[in-house]
Amino acid sequence: MIALFTDFGLAGPYTGQVKAVLADRAPGMPVVDLFADLPAGRPKPAAYLLAAYGPWFPPGTVVLAVVDPGVGSERRGVVVEADGRFYVGPDNGLFELLRRRAAARSWEIVWRPALLSASFHGRDLFAPVAARLAVGGPDAAILRETELSRVPDWPDDLPEIVYVDHYGNAMTGLRATVPPAAARLAVGGHALARARTFSDVPPGSAFWYENANGLAEIAVNAGRADAALGLAIGSPVAIIG
Amino acid sequence: MIALFTDFGLAGPYTGQVKAVLADRAPGMPVVDLFADLPAGRPKPAAYLLAAYGPWFPPGTVVLAVVDPGVGSERRGVVVEADGRFYVGPDNGLFELLRRRAAARSWEIVWRPALLSASFHGRDLFAPVAARLAVGGPDAAILRETELSRVPDWPDDLPEIVYVDHYGNAMTGLRATVPPAAARLAVGGHALARARTFSDVPPGSAFWYENANGLAEIAVNAGRADAALGLAIGSPVAIIG
Amino acid sequence: MIALFTDFGLAGPYTGQVKAVLADRAPGMPVVDLFADLPAGRPKPAAYLLAAYGPWFPPGTVVLAVVDPGVGSERRGVVVEADGRFYVGPDNGLFELLRRRAAARSWEIVWRPALLSASFHGRDLFAPVAARLAVGGPDAAILRETELSRVPDWPDDLPEIVYVDHYGNAMTGLRATVPPAAARLAVGGHALARARTFSDVPPGSAFWYENANGLAEIAVNAGRADAALGLAIGSPVAIIG
Repeated sequence: MIALFTDFGLAGPYTGQVKAVLADRAPGMPVVDLFADLPAGRPKPAAYLLAAYGPWFPPGTVVLAVVDPGVGSERRGVVVEADGRFYVGPDNGLFELLRRRAAARSWEIVWRPALLSASFHGRDLFAPVAARLAVGGPDAAILRETELSRVPDWPDDLPEIVYVDHYGNAMTGLRATVPPAAARLAVGGHALARARTFSDVPPGSAFWYENANGLAEIAVNAGRADAALGLAIGSPVAIIG
Repeated sequence: MIALFTDFGLAGPYTGQVKAVLADRAPGMPVVDLFADLPAGRPKPAAYLLAAYGPWFPPGTVVLAVVDPGVGSERRGVVVEADGRFYVGPDNGLFELLRRRAAARSWEIVWRPALLSASFHGRDLFAPVAARLAVGGPDAAILRETELSRVPDWPDDLPEIVYVDHYGNAMTGLRATVPPAAARLAVGGHALARARTFSDVPPGSAFWYENANGLAEIAVNAGRADAALGLAIGSPVAIIG
Repeated sequence: MIALFTDFGLAGPYTGQVKAVLADRAPGMPVVDLFADLPAGRPKPAAYLLAAYGPWFPPGTVVLAVVDPGVGSERRGVVVEADGRFYVGPDNGLFELLRRRAAARSWEIVWRPALLSASFHGRDLFAPVAARLAVGGPDAAILRETELSRVPDWPDDLPEIVYVDHYGNAMTGLRATVPPAAARLAVGGHALARARTFSDVPPGSAFWYENANGLAEIAVNAGRADAALGLAIGSPVAIIG
């Protein structure tokens, strides 16, 4: 399986052209859209999401992960193997948290396509490599083992909002095991208690809970947490008690 | 074929994870997105849409139907067979209109996955059941025949806007055969005459028509009915004459 | 491969029903969403996009191209073969630029389905024809060779914004080879110099560049060109120098 983890959007031409390359080069391989609406051009919040969502997929999955503000510059393209899944994308910190949390191998992509646009390596470089990995695994003809560029100043868990979903729920970069069970989370001027899920609190009430991929998430039962609490990507979160 | 009928959105992680489960457990089975933008957490308007759109699919289709504000509570998960199609989802009224309009059988899902999140039964419970139905039909090992919970106070046709599409057209919960052919529909303070389709009225004119799945729909030729008439989910509709 | 080029949106029922028809009639054929968010009901800007994006696909690809404000009227349905790709859709100018730029054959669709809705020929007429083309090529039983209706007053390159992507980048209807290499483009009251790609200019700077499909595109590094420059579909673009 190939999973797409990008800021490309679905309705415009970018995801579709990537899928056309994959259909051509990895025929019959299932392709799913994991995220297409990552915060545009911001690898840092995406890195915390990737470390939470990538390992949910079956071993052998290839995740095409592209949030790539430096496309066309000298930043490298890389492949990372972590816990049996493969990740393909730019070497800009996107794989930092995966790398910290798992034994990992990594390679620089040394192959270049005949036609490489300056602005769309997702289609021209990363998609062909993802297809090749999905069909045949790591291939020394196109990869050279290397160390990832590291971002040591990024924390192990990020006390910020990293994603707002289409219901208005706001995911944090904190694994839900980090705050003590009885802790409250302070966001947008409110201190929120933990609940198990939406139906455990009254309609209109805000709470935090462990989402279905292990992140601490801010939500309002039958409401939008982003609007109710004034939350956006980067809003700070503090653990109380 | 498996059709997805949800309020999950497409760009975030929910639909993608559901599709990953389906690709894993029903390999090669086509999966299409019927609706991913149903009114969030509102099974009532969704029930009228499902009864209009589900029967369009070929017999044997499995519709994964999840609008589930009570996820994690005691509400049951069910399977409904109606006119040769199968529907999987929460027992919260979503299947009420299908049930009224067709001979139907129904089952409670008694199977539980090893890992069941509190907030995402679409992925953890309903998708595996949909895959199993698509591959092998109803299976007594995971289902127990039961009656659906009923919602007798919901009308046979709902005189309200139940969906606004991305053009701004507003679908009602009325089958187009319900208003007399010469009737006007009153919405947003306007009384609209019937037309066959967009190109039959001048640009900028509002009208109602039978949409391609048999619902009465409010539209403006070359314009947005929602903005022009002030319509949203739940806006009342009255039949005049 | 079948590529979808429409203004149908992805989240609502239209694209999903088209894909259900394709899955039923061209089993196993890959289907990708090229554009689902073309300017609603406006074939002219779409025609310039189609001429830029269609030829990127492998020969043999069938492009289902539907921007169809005249659906249900007397406008014809057509098939165009241009440079080895097939295009299916309404005869309303959508194929004008493809036709000018390549040797092309064209056919009127004379087949009619048993059930043809007045408002959704994408599903009822064009999708079955696209499936048949993808499986077996042009078929004299459903097509009759004809000339396309022509739109001679549309220019060879359109000096307007034809699409705004989800990053806020604004594509023009100008092939990037049309402005001299050193020319500036005037849009929204600004005169912008050319750059190779985003990372070649400082964050916040506006520029124009050749996008990954050969169109001149207006962008802002790490910003939204549409908001920064006040651009929308139809905004005029002038070549300076």
